Amino acid sequence: MTTLAYLGPEGTFTEAALRSYAPDARGLPYPTVAAALEAVRQAHVSGAVVPVENSIEGPVTVTLDELSAGAPLLITAEVLVPVRFALLVRPGTTLESVKRILTHPVAHAQCRTFLAAHLPHAEVLQSGSTAGAAMTVAEVGSPYDAAIAAPIAGERYGLEALATDIGERSDAVTRFLVVRPPGPLSAATGVDRTSLVAYIRDDHPGALQEILAEFSVRGVNLTWIQSRPTGDGIGRYCFSIDCEGHIADSRVAEALMGLRRVCGHVRFLGSYARADGVAPAIRKGTAEADFTEAAGWLKRIRAGGV
Amino acid sequence: MTTLAYLGPEGTFTEAALRSYAPDARGLPYPTVAAALEAVRQAHVSGAVVPVENSIEGPVTVTLDELSAGAPLLITAEVLVPVRFALLVRPGTTLESVKRILTHPVAHAQCRTFLAAHLPHAEVLQSGSTAGAAMTVAEVGSPYDAAIAAPIAGERYGLEALATDIGERSDAVTRFLVVRPPGPLSAATGVDRTSLVAYIRDDHPGALQEILAEFSVRGVNLTWIQSRPTGDGIGRYCFSIDCEGHIADSRVAEALMGLRRVCGHVRFLGSYARADGVAPAIRKGTAEADFTEAAGWLKRIRAGGV
Amino acid sequence: MTTLAYLGPEGTFTEAALRSYAPDARGLPYPTVAAALEAVRQAHVSGAVVPVENSIEGPVTVTLDELSAGAPLLITAEVLVPVRFALLVRPGTTLESVKRILTHPVAHAQCRTFLAAHLPHAEVLQSGSTAGAAMTVAEVGSPYDAAIAAPIAGERYGLEALATDIGERSDAVTRFLVVRPPGPLSAATGVDRTSLVAYIRDDHPGALQEILAEFSVRGVNLTWIQSRPTGDGIGRYCFSIDCEGHIADSRVAEALMGLRRVCGHVRFLGSYARADGVAPAIRKGTAEADFTEAAGWLKRIRAGGV
Amino acid sequence: MTTLAYLGPEGTFTEAALRSYAPDARGLPYPTVAAALEAVRQAHVSGAVVPVENSIEGPVTVTLDELSAGAPLLITAEVLVPVRFALLVRPGTTLESVKRILTHPVAHAQCRTFLAAHLPHAEVLQSGSTAGAAMTVAEVGSPYDAAIAAPIAGERYGLEALATDIGERSDAVTRFLVVRPPGPLSAATGVDRTSLVAYIRDDHPGALQEILAEFSVRGVNLTWIQSRPTGDGIGRYCFSIDCEGHIADSRVAEALMGLRRVCGHVRFLGSYARADGVAPAIRKGTAEADFTEAAGWLKRIRAGGV
Repeated sequence: MTTLAYLGPEGTFTEAALRSYAPDARGLPYPTVAAALEAVRQAHVSGAVVPVENSIEGPVTVTLDELSAGAPLLITAEVLVPVRFALLVRPGTTLESVKRILTHPVAHAQCRTFLAAHLPHAEVLQSGSTAGAAMTVAEVGSPYDAAIAAPIAGERYGLEALATDIGERSDAVTRFLVVRPPGPLSAATGVDRTSLVAYIRDDHPGALQEILAEFSVRGVNLTWIQSRPTGDGIGRYCFSIDCEGHIADSRVAEALMGLRRVCGHVRFLGSYARADGVAPAIRKGTAEADFTEAAGWLKRIRAGGV
Repeated sequence: MTTLAYLGPEGTFTEAALRSYAPDARGLPYPTVAAALEAVRQAHVSGAVVPVENSIEGPVTVTLDELSAGAPLLITAEVLVPVRFALLVRPGTTLESVKRILTHPVAHAQCRTFLAAHLPHAEVLQSGSTAGAAMTVAEVGSPYDAAIAAPIAGERYGLEALATDIGERSDAVTRFLVVRPPGPLSAATGVDRTSLVAYIRDDHPGALQEILAEFSVRGVNLTWIQSRPTGDGIGRYCFSIDCEGHIADSRVAEALMGLRRVCGHVRFLGSYARADGVAPAIRKGTAEADFTEAAGWLKRIRAGGV
Repeated sequence: MTTLAYLGPEGTFTEAALRSYAPDARGLPYPTVAAALEAVRQAHVSGAVVPVENSIEGPVTVTLDELSAGAPLLITAEVLVPVRFALLVRPGTTLESVKRILTHPVAHAQCRTFLAAHLPHAEVLQSGSTAGAAMTVAEVGSPYDAAIAAPIAGERYGLEALATDIGERSDAVTRFLVVRPPGPLSAATGVDRTSLVAYIRDDHPGALQEILAEFSVRGVNLTWIQSRPTGDGIGRYCFSIDCEGHIADSRVAEALMGLRRVCGHVRFLGSYARADGVAPAIRKGTAEADFTEAAGWLKRIRAGGV
Repeated sequence: MTTLAYLGPEGTFTEAALRSYAPDARGLPYPTVAAALEAVRQAHVSGAVVPVENSIEGPVTVTLDELSAGAPLLITAEVLVPVRFALLVRPGTTLESVKRILTHPVAHAQCRTFLAAHLPHAEVLQSGSTAGAAMTVAEVGSPYDAAIAAPIAGERYGLEALATDIGERSDAVTRFLVVRPPGPLSAATGVDRTSLVAYIRDDHPGALQEILAEFSVRGVNLTWIQSRPTGDGIGRYCFSIDCEGHIADSRVAEALMGLRRVCGHVRFLGSYARADGVAPAIRKGTAEADFTEAAGWLKRIRAGGV
């Protein structure tokens, strides 16, 4: 049976992502993203599920940093999980008796309207994660009456939901990555995303424009960009980038070769199916058939034809 | 006396930033960035100090989100604080007796080498913030023996440092912003930064290139860029951008007017002195004198001169 | 009465352009474009009409060179003249008796089909201009039987047209410029063209891209571009450029100020109504109202408003 | 023996170019560039030598038009010829007796200083070409006393030079092309030029920027660009472009494939050694080795390597 690491503890949105991605896999919780990815590098597990965007369970920057540094890893899939919060209590607790609530600050922020309406006098205390809050509330003799956490945390720790969907933004989702050791890429599906980190060669004005031109001239759209300090001193940057398409696509391949040439370093992180199913907008002249036709034309004219 | 809100609790790196920025101000801790900024909007305080980049006390994305939405606020200064961790204990505790350590997961990650060398058998538990860990350790009867936190947390909660500078990256810094209600801008110093949020008009390919061209054609370098979902649905983005220079500079002013024209919306967040003192690299032809000379030339030729 | 110089001799398409532009002006023919423009510079005439594009009467490059160098001049209007050729003979000459035809090589090239069909055995000889051919044919005792020239040449030299519109491309037009001493610009009409010469500062890769970016970022379309050697040695270039719009338009004015800053030298040649009446395609965000609105916004935010 | 067509008559700078390029070839003069190129297309000759830039013998636009339209041809070499003018007379004529001079208007313009100093009272008349002027002067009973033409015209027509190098710009050169039927390309020399014509797909704003981006992103510099009407109506353009490098170079090949994809049509005209010997400035990351390395990297990462 496959074993996958994930950002624990049990009951996090990350575990929910893992269940959605691989219902039959064995999940092994790790305390940090770094630890989960290290388990992949050390071959203790066959992969890991970690949050990457808009997560409430920890900053996405950690995941980006960990994938950018250390031994290379490969992203093979992404998973979207709706962010839904529940007010979780030990069985038998009533809404009226909830005085002290434990949760992560971001979950707290997203549930203010519910709390103001239904528990205006309750004290809200901070924990490092929503799942940790649920675990603490579940302990015998816990000084807390309720946790705000993902529904899965209630299942894991034997808590009951007094209320569900108490967050303010019902469309919030968290994006997770499935990370494997380097090896065969995920097959192209036509609706793919490619992730990479690009380190500029010299910190010169216009360096970012140069990088983006490599994509735009081949009609490859970005879906994410973030400048990030490299840690080697103030003012030195790398760019964490997601683009539409698969490295098996000519337009993506040519853009990445262009990056490889103009950047100090490029780390390819993977090409994988988009979880949101949004097909790429292919600009006229940049479809696969256009690349094939142009390559044939080049071959002809190089040989003296017309 | 001036009162400034900050991301609490007491003893955080944010409080250290506030002390560095305004030693004589009264600091008022708030549980979240959102709450601190709301206190400014409600005029309960005259300003707030909040983390924005590389903070270990919470994701920077919260600050960006809060500044992007709601009633407008103005950034008037930035502060850099070195990230230094100390191992804090109640007076009298010895290194040998430390069995259970409480800290934030990111602080934990940055102190692994120290812990492996000096406390290989200690259990490390997670808290929502390093300052919260120090506060908990300071409580009478605390089940924890030590906290890893900023030195200032030791001062606040009466803890002693068994070891200082135990983090692995001695050059790590956190950047904080001082945020005020809209009003007079900070004066230009020649070494300034300008922050803004740009919402693209239509989610079309090349939209980011267009935005960047407005900067590059006027020789304005970016120091930070991050694409961010607007929350109005998948695939709609805004860009959080910092650039070199002050809006009083012609090159920055013209770039911002260009953004205003091509974007769906632009929120100016402020121009303020750079804490790192890095002077802008002014490309030939984009200095203030060049703009003045060109404006004079235009006036002449419009009037029929040569 | 106004006197205008033009590229002679009498009977050229240039004279036709002058008649079309200023029916009541006195026209003074000059043997070269340089001489016609020098007459303006010396104030011997109040202006000059010279060909600039697709002319059959001489290379357009001469006009561009002459406007680029020497004392500055101002283009105040443009005129389009259809290129129509007639077979001109002395009165009484019949088609059958035409053995030797004099014309300019380009006119010859454009009338080959007619000649092959109707005068397959006639000899065609070259002259320096079509009008000069007509003049020579009109001389008593001329060794030539016919000229191919503009209809106006027949009027000037007392020749009859045996056939008209004998050119192969019925839509061919020549563009002429009306050039004045520096002084008040032509008023903006909403359908204007602006001409200039831009000298790059250093002959570096990407210099042309930089120049074009100054236009494109302000939504100003080019209608003409030609790289031209400056004559100061191999590999040094200037660019002769026409763009849509009037220097009174903000988008054009800002683009020209940008050029002024990044180029070694810019010579403004004039803004004037387009003879073809093609209105500019104004890109969203670059209309006059957009510039005005953005300037107002800048003023507000510089003053601390929102 | 090889026979090459050239733009006649005998004694032109074009014949001088042909002699410089192929001293032993038989030269066959043609009255127009179109006729010379048609002779190649009809296989009456094995190639043609025609002027392309800064020629005084006819507008360069003719050559560009003729290469752009009709059956494809291949440029295999270029030749530079210094533009030197001589005052040519029938043997025995003295400077004092020169009253009527025949020449091409451009030659006239370039020799004004000499004429003003030495022949202030002579009448200057226009001919269609400098060689034609020499031929006419050489005729028995010619009404002209002298011609201004290339020295080679004196040799051809038995005239003597009363003065040489009488032009004002001693560094003027004319560039000629050697044109062949489609077939094997000239071998790459490392110092090459590539010529092509690009027709934009739709006449949309920014079309030229798109075309130039295909070159600049691969570090390919342009040495010539000219917008040209396609003749299919006002406002539709194509671009005549020369760039550094040979189509055998990866950076040029990739740029041309890019053009092929984004343009409505691209006509490759040839890659050939530069006559001026100016080596390309290769931008970091765009050398042949960089392309090879990046292609190897792509292959590795597509196969799951790092």
